[in-house]
Amino acid sequence: MTKRLGSEETAGDGASPEAEGARLLNRRSLLAGTVSLVGSMIVGSHGPSGAGAMESFPDDPTRVPGKAPTTYGQRSTFETAVRVPRSGSVSLTPLQDSHGILTPSALHFERHHNGVPTIDPARHRLLVHGLVDQPWTFTLDDLKRFPAVSRLAFIECSGNSSIEWKGPTGKTVQDTHGLTSTSEWTGVAMKTVLQEIGVKPEASWMLAEGGDAAVMTRSLPLASILDEAMLCYAQNGEPLRPEQGYPLRLVIPGWEGNTCIKWLRRLKLGTAPFMTREETSHYTDLMPDGTARQFTMVMDARSVITFPSGGQRIQPGFVEIRGLAWSGRGRITEVEVSVNGGRIWQQAVLQDPVLPKCHTRFHLPWRWNGDDVILQSRSVDETGYRQPDRTALVAVRGVNSFYHYNAIQSWHIAADGQVSNVQP
Amino acid sequence: MTKRLGSEETAGDGASPEAEGARLLNRRSLLAGTVSLVGSMIVGSHGPSGAGAMESFPDDPTRVPGKAPTTYGQRSTFETAVRVPRSGSVSLTPLQDSHGILTPSALHFERHHNGVPTIDPARHRLLVHGLVDQPWTFTLDDLKRFPAVSRLAFIECSGNSSIEWKGPTGKTVQDTHGLTSTSEWTGVAMKTVLQEIGVKPEASWMLAEGGDAAVMTRSLPLASILDEAMLCYAQNGEPLRPEQGYPLRLVIPGWEGNTCIKWLRRLKLGTAPFMTREETSHYTDLMPDGTARQFTMVMDARSVITFPSGGQRIQPGFVEIRGLAWSGRGRITEVEVSVNGGRIWQQAVLQDPVLPKCHTRFHLPWRWNGDDVILQSRSVDETGYRQPDRTALVAVRGVNSFYHYNAIQSWHIAADGQVSNVQP
Repeated sequence: MTKRLGSEETAGDGASPEAEGARLLNRRSLLAGTVSLVGSMIVGSHGPSGAGAMESFPDDPTRVPGKAPTTYGQRSTFETAVRVPRSGSVSLTPLQDSHGILTPSALHFERHHNGVPTIDPARHRLLVHGLVDQPWTFTLDDLKRFPAVSRLAFIECSGNSSIEWKGPTGKTVQDTHGLTSTSEWTGVAMKTVLQEIGVKPEASWMLAEGGDAAVMTRSLPLASILDEAMLCYAQNGEPLRPEQGYPLRLVIPGWEGNTCIKWLRRLKLGTAPFMTREETSHYTDLMPDGTARQFTMVMDARSVITFPSGGQRIQPGFVEIRGLAWSGRGRITEVEVSVNGGRIWQQAVLQDPVLPKCHTRFHLPWRWNGDDVILQSRSVDETGYRQPDRTALVAVRGVNSFYHYNAIQSWHIAADGQVSNVQP
Repeated sequence: MTKRLGSEETAGDGASPEAEGARLLNRRSLLAGTVSLVGSMIVGSHGPSGAGAMESFPDDPTRVPGKAPTTYGQRSTFETAVRVPRSGSVSLTPLQDSHGILTPSALHFERHHNGVPTIDPARHRLLVHGLVDQPWTFTLDDLKRFPAVSRLAFIECSGNSSIEWKGPTGKTVQDTHGLTSTSEWTGVAMKTVLQEIGVKPEASWMLAEGGDAAVMTRSLPLASILDEAMLCYAQNGEPLRPEQGYPLRLVIPGWEGNTCIKWLRRLKLGTAPFMTREETSHYTDLMPDGTARQFTMVMDARSVITFPSGGQRIQPGFVEIRGLAWSGRGRITEVEVSVNGGRIWQQAVLQDPVLPKCHTRFHLPWRWNGDDVILQSRSVDETGYRQPDRTALVAVRGVNSFYHYNAIQSWHIAADGQVSNVQP
């Protein structure tokens, strides 16, 4: 077979992952017809999609004039990926169906404390008061007149993977890691608003309060969030979705999702944490010595392989391992993948753009020979922090925590190709 | 008023745009209460939003438990931004309502030649044939098994702004510039697929054909697209939307939208352009000397101010000028804004991330004193190409073209604050 369109023939051992990928592809006898067979065996997003279709379709679409333009589009009725609810206040993003680094707003995970309120944006107000020169109430129009800032950032619930503390519980990557999503957020820098009304020198903490039926509140150390916090009215190019805080959300890139107060209606400046219910009885972790770990704001670096992942099934031959890595402390600088339970680690390719406090997509070409194996990934961020394995995490934190589980995820591939969640 | 949260007090003349923005903000008497008044006068996205609401809402949302999680979210019923259809085969993105650089898939512009077909992805096939070593038919599952690539890129219809050739016609920025949108696209690199089947050395052109009722076809010079063309099955983190080519679209970042064949079903390698209807009777421009400008694939650099823009109305005081710039040749390196019809140009701030062949957001703080003025923007890309003014464009192209209008856009602001489209 002619191979004039690249230089992969020269790639030997120790070549770049890209070259290695090309080499694996060339060896995998794609044209012998194994691919369609294998592809159709993958459980999940790659399976035949007609089963859930709500719509008739022509045998030959070229013989039937198509549909007219629409004012606000919808996805194909052949597509069925969904957020999976867990209890009445949580739903998880289907990471096994994710592509690239963005999460569609329709599939961004949800976490609310007393449901999603319906708020008329024309009546919504933000009160800023406490240790300020002049308390002020802002309408949304006021806030939209300020200079605008946009930024791509992930938001992760600190309870993401909480079910994994006691053992390998989640069946799929949606179960184990589905409480994180990446969006482009737009609003006004919190600093701009505070500059405008003047903050008293002694102010060091800020209470943020939501206008939902839980009146969700958190205390935030002012100096730590001043540079990056945003009062956001838009997400992925359009107004916030209701379940993401419409019409106004505090977004603190890299901080646990519950600090990014949705349906934001009040900011109060003070000199100490306000010790709200959500930061005393809630959002703290029980340590092995009986103390409580509190005000654990930043989400540490982690990563997960999204393909192949729990509940999927693969066939021997070429497999591109794909996953996501992210850190609340900045950019991901490195992701390593092991295909033998952690004995050997290989560098994965990070896909551009690699942005701070954003999901980062990684890839590694692989040839599965049918052996029983364990796949793992681990990430390093720009601070040098390296994602811990489970043993190291539990050694420090014990197993009575609920939040901030960021250990290496292990996926077991059985000889029949079935993938499952394990903690070896 | 205390201003301890920044250094803007030291910003003098000649300071950075950011410092200038802070200075303008501080002078605009925000807290004297002018903002709410002004904000509510802006026509368009910033107006009271209750009018279009389809939903009842509680007087006090904190007193009513909210809604449960949903499997696939929808926007708030208070939000009413829509694509505006133009004829039966075009709809335009509401750029005046845009935030950041992404376009929501639901608002991505549409252009189809015989409607949006309904295609069962399980039955869809891509045939690659002609001057190849081995013709091959791929299922979607086959294509998803190849190494995946994702990339943020704009797609712009070459007919964007076509109505402006003969004079200032569009009323809003949606009318004048709404045929461009930015998404994250995911699929397999075209090069990977061609490497796999082997392309004969003499192949230099490729026919791409869609499976819609127009059987839309274009010829593409192979060497020019080999590095960047993608066979995409996903957009913004989920499968392509039907009107964007579901289940498979050729995406050639920076090239005119019609080359990014939707509902892609066939690629044929050959030695010359196939001279299809779409590149002979269509997608060519009549030049002043009577010749036809043909195979004009790349979208040249341009920019437009989205706020304030046609149909909006502003009030005297602080105004943040906001807009978008993009180039099919790479990154935007500079955007300049004039608030006096082109006599003086100021550097706008480019917002990170500035990505190649992507919408780039720019901002410039401004104080409008109520004078009759003309606002303009012009962009420069990494090749050094500078967006032309209308006189320069028409001097070369005449006014009998339909495609590739990229002249500087002028918005007139009357003394009453009303913004309208002009060609001074």
